[in-house]
Amino acid sequence: MNGREGLSSVAAALRRYRRFIVTSHVHPDGDAVGSVLAMGWILRQLRKEVRLLLPERVPAAYTFLPGQELIEVAGPAGPAEDAEGERPLWPAEAVVVVDCSDADRLGPVQKLLPPGAAVITVDHHLQNEFGEPRYVRTEAAATGELLYELIRELGLQLDCDTATCLYTALLTDTGSFRFANTTAETLHIAADLLHLGVSPSCVAEQVYDVRPLGALRLLAEALATLRVTPCGRVAWLEMDEGMLERHGVDASETEGIVNYARTIAGVKIGALFRGVGPSLTRVSWRSRPGYDVARLAGRFGGGGHVNAAGCDIPLPVPEAVKAGVAAALAAIREVDGS
Amino acid sequence: MNGREGLSSVAAALRRYRRFIVTSHVHPDGDAVGSVLAMGWILRQLRKEVRLLLPERVPAAYTFLPGQELIEVAGPAGPAEDAEGERPLWPAEAVVVVDCSDADRLGPVQKLLPPGAAVITVDHHLQNEFGEPRYVRTEAAATGELLYELIRELGLQLDCDTATCLYTALLTDTGSFRFANTTAETLHIAADLLHLGVSPSCVAEQVYDVRPLGALRLLAEALATLRVTPCGRVAWLEMDEGMLERHGVDASETEGIVNYARTIAGVKIGALFRGVGPSLTRVSWRSRPGYDVARLAGRFGGGGHVNAAGCDIPLPVPEAVKAGVAAALAAIREVDGS
Repeated sequence: MNGREGLSSVAAALRRYRRFIVTSHVHPDGDAVGSVLAMGWILRQLRKEVRLLLPERVPAAYTFLPGQELIEVAGPAGPAEDAEGERPLWPAEAVVVVDCSDADRLGPVQKLLPPGAAVITVDHHLQNEFGEPRYVRTEAAATGELLYELIRELGLQLDCDTATCLYTALLTDTGSFRFANTTAETLHIAADLLHLGVSPSCVAEQVYDVRPLGALRLLAEALATLRVTPCGRVAWLEMDEGMLERHGVDASETEGIVNYARTIAGVKIGALFRGVGPSLTRVSWRSRPGYDVARLAGRFGGGGHVNAAGCDIPLPVPEAVKAGVAAALAAIREVDGS
Repeated sequence: MNGREGLSSVAAALRRYRRFIVTSHVHPDGDAVGSVLAMGWILRQLRKEVRLLLPERVPAAYTFLPGQELIEVAGPAGPAEDAEGERPLWPAEAVVVVDCSDADRLGPVQKLLPPGAAVITVDHHLQNEFGEPRYVRTEAAATGELLYELIRELGLQLDCDTATCLYTALLTDTGSFRFANTTAETLHIAADLLHLGVSPSCVAEQVYDVRPLGALRLLAEALATLRVTPCGRVAWLEMDEGMLERHGVDASETEGIVNYARTIAGVKIGALFRGVGPSLTRVSWRSRPGYDVARLAGRFGGGGHVNAAGCDIPLPVPEAVKAGVAAALAAIREVDGS
């Protein structure tokens, strides 16, 4: 069941069972972590037994979220697998999956779920046919928005900690309220969360504004490589294999860097070429509306979204740049006609 | 008169006079441009004669704002001064100054204002004792927020174009709703503006994601100067006088650069020192919550907000850095105690 009618079915299912596992997708983002924590709170308010489980560690940017220390990790390093034989996750009658549209995206969590348990989903992704009952609304900016509705449906009184989790979900999935998924409803909910005591600057500060010095130095070095084709429609940055090590940062710090290439006026496709081996270059692609980089990445065996995609090119960086930029120009010509 | 009671006084004054000049501060930002345009719209709705005047050109990032082509520029290049003797700005009975806390910050606009004209101000800066009547509320995130209230007070029906100007004012003065000045009220107003048809992603794209190539090259060069004090609490960037010219960009492109210094983990105060003359350095200050850079800037004769301020230091860049960084460290020690 999708749409608004799913809301009461999900609320009823949460009341029905006694023991729950709450989980979400691999590479957990702010919406996944915030939603898992909020769902855990909801279930505790309903006096249920609940365990929170993620396929991977909570990323550093979200470890400020209240209650995140309660999240167990399903991966090799996590407590869920080395729980000394007590197999604590099996007795759950129901699994609540938030912000995740199919079972594959649960990664290592999948094999830890009790067979036969009910699967309840709350999600805003397209094509979620996963779980029953499910509450799926694709117009919602974040799953956190749906949990806010669920909390109202259940008549619970939000506290500041849980409001902070929901606010983080909204903030991160809208790119600080800048993406096209931001609606008036999103902002009204965000406003209500501030009324409950959330500090928008503290959340934003934790999520966006606390970066290791090395990340800034990496950015400076990457930006210094900026090049643009003579037509001004493709811009790219380069990083050699040693650049991360030199600045003592890990690959997650490269995430936003490609966007700088895309922001240049006139540029349709921006790219970051990063050497990851002597003959292997990882490419991130970003594009303006109308230019499909998922297809472009696909030509090199990669994929992703229409305006944000990636691929590996089995060449050293200079050769990968030549091949990649030529392909990007060809992709643009297909759209622009010249 | 400050605070809420100023609102009706300002509304009454706008109704009282017939001919207005609307203006704002030097280095106009999104709140200044958006507020000037919104105030122009208000006065036209009230069937007043109105001219919009800024001390400098509208920065490229805000030229998408509906109606910005109506803004005259007081500087040497502007039409306001070469109007072939007709001195069109003199007959105004009242000058509405938005988002500007003192006459000095009007720059070249000052000498174009009709002597004896009433000065009406709407502003959210600290220590605004300028204009009578005035509506000043320092808790407002942006002057745009106060204009939204004024529009309600006057019973006017906002259109999408003016809503876009106000949304841009809110978005930019809160740093995309990330600064500590963001309140529930700010987000409720922003939500209402979306109801009127504003596209948050289009505004954000124009404001943040379309930049001249030179701006990126400027950023790269500025980031390469990044330095941090041994204690890790003050970080700064430097720009020499020729840097803007070298990249063919104007000073407005330096606006966000200082924030990079502040985002480093552990840094309390970030600064950008920009040479603007052989013995004059313009300093932008940004701070983490709890550290007051308005006061810090004040020590050098500048001012601004608690977490974002600016000043000029009459020294070449290297000496200004020494003086500025020492003062910043002292300000931090006052708070941290060591």
